[in-house]
Amino acid sequence: MTKDELLRLTNEVLQDALEEDQYVLELILTGLKKKQYHEKNSYINAILHAEGEFKNGQFTIKIPNTPIIQNALTIVHGGITATLLDSAMGGLVHHILPPDKTVVTSEMKINYVAPGVGKELVCTTDIIHKGNKTVVTEGRVYRDDGTLIAHSTASFFIINRS
Amino acid sequence: MTKDELLRLTNEVLQDALEEDQYVLELILTGLKKKQYHEKNSYINAILHAEGEFKNGQFTIKIPNTPIIQNALTIVHGGITATLLDSAMGGLVHHILPPDKTVVTSEMKINYVAPGVGKELVCTTDIIHKGNKTVVTEGRVYRDDGTLIAHSTASFFIINRS
Amino acid sequence: MTKDELLRLTNEVLQDALEEDQYVLELILTGLKKKQYHEKNSYINAILHAEGEFKNGQFTIKIPNTPIIQNALTIVHGGITATLLDSAMGGLVHHILPPDKTVVTSEMKINYVAPGVGKELVCTTDIIHKGNKTVVTEGRVYRDDGTLIAHSTASFFIINRS
Amino acid sequence: MTKDELLRLTNEVLQDALEEDQYVLELILTGLKKKQYHEKNSYINAILHAEGEFKNGQFTIKIPNTPIIQNALTIVHGGITATLLDSAMGGLVHHILPPDKTVVTSEMKINYVAPGVGKELVCTTDIIHKGNKTVVTEGRVYRDDGTLIAHSTASFFIINRS
Repeated sequence: MTKDELLRLTNEVLQDALEEDQYVLELILTGLKKKQYHEKNSYINAILHAEGEFKNGQFTIKIPNTPIIQNALTIVHGGITATLLDSAMGGLVHHILPPDKTVVTSEMKINYVAPGVGKELVCTTDIIHKGNKTVVTEGRVYRDDGTLIAHSTASFFIINRS
Repeated sequence: MTKDELLRLTNEVLQDALEEDQYVLELILTGLKKKQYHEKNSYINAILHAEGEFKNGQFTIKIPNTPIIQNALTIVHGGITATLLDSAMGGLVHHILPPDKTVVTSEMKINYVAPGVGKELVCTTDIIHKGNKTVVTEGRVYRDDGTLIAHSTASFFIINRS
Repeated sequence: MTKDELLRLTNEVLQDALEEDQYVLELILTGLKKKQYHEKNSYINAILHAEGEFKNGQFTIKIPNTPIIQNALTIVHGGITATLLDSAMGGLVHHILPPDKTVVTSEMKINYVAPGVGKELVCTTDIIHKGNKTVVTEGRVYRDDGTLIAHSTASFFIINRS
Repeated sequence: MTKDELLRLTNEVLQDALEEDQYVLELILTGLKKKQYHEKNSYINAILHAEGEFKNGQFTIKIPNTPIIQNALTIVHGGITATLLDSAMGGLVHHILPPDKTVVTSEMKINYVAPGVGKELVCTTDIIHKGNKTVVTEGRVYRDDGTLIAHSTASFFIINRS
């Protein structure tokens, strides 16, 4: 679509927009701007408004809980919790590897223990084992009231950055 | 933000938009329209343009592979593959339960076996075990060239629909 | 202990032996003989009286359900079900690799779906993915009445046989 | 088999016994005596010479590394590591439940990160989440040199003791 067509489509969407739709569009547009300004390296991270921080050997990612990431029951979609866990555990592994190495996720297991509600989700991460070929990690996702909502372990293959 | 402010923000985003940014905005806006027309029951499914089908005891979901769901290496984000698996396995379980029951995912394990590339991803699903309190399922995600990219097993708790 | 001391200890154990104890000792002694005759390659397989068979691309292992493998509730110990699954999935992978390669289990996940009771357990196996470095497999354990008691997926690293 | 037949069979096994066979028989017979004296509640725990301890909210089990639990490569069988993890995590859960409740394992995932060698294995355990219907736990198995060999998470269903 051309830029004109996109503007027209935005107008159409706004005609019938509920307050929630407007909020979602605001989140998406501000996300896209962050991507354009290279504050985010992927659309998915931009749209999720993920904020990562590496401190004291831990890598943490926070995302606001918004209608974008909720299922039909207004609870955070388990796949988004998985996205947060995969990003945060992968981010931790990147931080402990030399710059010529990167990783791919080889497996991940998640236990969902409480519903994802509240204002934001925070994912904390730890290394379980660092080998020559693989790294095994642990991640936990908390609500802003401190309740654990999910626990995960994952394995990452170390590969050469091409 | 008001509708006027959102239109102005759309204009701003379009100023600096690369072709890819325009494509992403088009996908999001057409997704939001589907949500407004109740063709999709959540923003995440609308933005992913997920298409589900129940046939021969199997529930299948397809999503196009677009820049929205790719990580910085232009490979589908493992969390999105997880989202697809969780949605499809959960969808299958809903189809075999009476209408007064619903489910929550209690655990999910995913093996990632090949990179998510190509035009679309298809997730097929099967029941491993149907109990009184839980259902255990299996899901597989394929590329359009038929390559398996991920395998998953998951458990769902059966709960009363409130 | 010397052979004489071992005979004396056997006598002691038999003094207080219940019928079940005698049955367990019989299973162990006949297992040890199989190990001595090289019919079994490990004590654990000998004691479990595991019988493997490779047929039509599948590797299957059967074990009799005996008091040796039951927990205090006379149900098969989940760890023994795991032992059966690990042995059978690993056995399948060995069958599809060249003779100079072997494997180590890197991860295994098991869903326990019904209690392990009855006369014997049978584990069937399948390949999910065969890569250059890893193989991902699936295993299912059934009772002799056909009920599925456990489902597992596992990953194996391919290594050079030293 | 009668007690006389069992003694004769023991004699036969001892005829051809290697030193290792004698050691294995000693471990089994001393294990069976512990079972007869009700020091162990199952044959498998008796044969493994498992020693559990509950201290500071943690439940720990130690087992000696003996030829009984090793695979053909003289490394501890992954299924025995699973048995140790399942027993220890299940034991921890029993300790935090009221006496009229018990649990069954519903799922377990294990990451194997180093070979099981050395003199003994120690499994430590923690609670990840305690709910009304399920408990999610974490377990780690260490060698006597302090190396982590396996990490596990598991879910247990709480049921009424019959």
